Amino acid sequence: NTISVGLLTVSDRCFRGLTKDTSGICIRELINGGSHLKATVIVEDCVPDEIDAISTILTKWSDVLNVNLIFTLGGTGFSQRDVTPEATKAIIERDAPGLSFAMIKMSLEITPLAMLSRPVCGIRKQTLIINLPGSPKAVKECFQMVVPSLQHAVDLITGSKDVAETHK
Amino acid sequence: NTISVGLLTVSDRCFRGLTKDTSGICIRELINGGSHLKATVIVEDCVPDEIDAISTILTKWSDVLNVNLIFTLGGTGFSQRDVTPEATKAIIERDAPGLSFAMIKMSLEITPLAMLSRPVCGIRKQTLIINLPGSPKAVKECFQMVVPSLQHAVDLITGSKDVAETHK
Amino acid sequence: NTISVGLLTVSDRCFRGLTKDTSGICIRELINGGSHLKATVIVEDCVPDEIDAISTILTKWSDVLNVNLIFTLGGTGFSQRDVTPEATKAIIERDAPGLSFAMIKMSLEITPLAMLSRPVCGIRKQTLIINLPGSPKAVKECFQMVVPSLQHAVDLITGSKDVAETHK
Ligand code: NA
Repeated sequence: NTISVGLLTVSDRCFRGLTKDTSGICIRELINGGSHLKATVIVEDCVPDEIDAISTILTKWSDVLNVNLIFTLGGTGFSQRDVTPEATKAIIERDAPGLSFAMIKMSLEITPLAMLSRPVCGIRKQTLIINLPGSPKAVKECFQMVVPSLQHAVDLITGSKDVAETHK
Repeated sequence: NTISVGLLTVSDRCFRGLTKDTSGICIRELINGGSHLKATVIVEDCVPDEIDAISTILTKWSDVLNVNLIFTLGGTGFSQRDVTPEATKAIIERDAPGLSFAMIKMSLEITPLAMLSRPVCGIRKQTLIINLPGSPKAVKECFQMVVPSLQHAVDLITGSKDVAETHK
Repeated sequence: NTISVGLLTVSDRCFRGLTKDTSGICIRELINGGSHLKATVIVEDCVPDEIDAISTILTKWSDVLNVNLIFTLGGTGFSQRDVTPEATKAIIERDAPGLSFAMIKMSLEITPLAMLSRPVCGIRKQTLIINLPGSPKAVKECFQMVVPSLQHAVDLITGSKDVAETHK
């Protein structure tokens, strides 16, 4: 029951090749070795900070590829071009505010600038989508925060476990 | 000034009679004896995990029965059938995210799986609607968290007290 | 690079001249002297608790005056007339839930009644809009909570700094 993962880097600069996708490298390492999550990255892409470009990939990976878990990387801040949360909200069917809450709460213990993060998490069909920030350090911190819930989350979404077990 | 309460159990299994509504029993006990809230359950029902079925009851209890406070029980998790938050969002007129926030925050202190809860709280006409989870243990924990604010909440919604008093 | 600020008091009673705008006085003092924020109030107004009246001012100050930062004061509670969050949601282009989160979290440490606050924060064009509560004491507490992030927030929104710096 290995979790299938999609990684979507959202960055104008990465898309144009002006900078290296260090967050993508960071999360691949975390998934492959640095965590206890049984997961494999099966698809990756990089898109510019455009709502349509982001939404299109998220929809395709959910509806066609049936990926269990998608992490977006970047585009969740206050700059004019940061629209990853808006693109995510546009295509999720069900909100998962507890995940966003947990990431902001943990981040606030590190820096007050965490107030300026705007992560959205939610479910589309059988796929859980989680917005992560754009820097390797913040990606690592947020990933560590949510990782204890991910196996159970995927089991519930895919129907591998009964809902009743969530609340035990 | 006893608060009138509606209890709506949302569960396919309870609806079909396949399991006992232990959460409903639990919250009735809390309201009748285990808390200091002056409240009476005036209406109860059980519906399957269907958006329309849930929304219809919530609307009727708010608009026709004028219930002060509705607790939904169950359907707030990650399973495909969990749609209580979506049904609630569809009919509330005003969000009350502070209540959701407080429940998630408290729950996270008990288990990281609280990240997977998706409670929605909000106001429709003169009725406050609160999504509680589906297990008696979690119901009790969340109820205890919000109960200190409920008398004041109902007083404000129904106009028994002036808004200025909230912030004193 | 002084931040330009708009202050919008939302209160039926202030609008009719039945009470003094003590929250407005409080936040002006905080901005002018009590904080380390380099900011100037360039526009102020008072509107009744009506969605259209509130939205119209927020839109004008964002789109025409290009104010960096708007604080609304009041109208975020549970009374029937409290609609500042709804008016704000109606006109923001991007949510900033981390700011709302931080204010509720801090307020909950002071009183459980903070569960009943419903602040919305978000961005419209180049303007950050923050809902503050209606009492001077609560205004001060919430302002102190968010102030460490405001200079950076405005820099990001207006493009004075690159997004990459947020996550360092
Ligand atoms: Na929302």
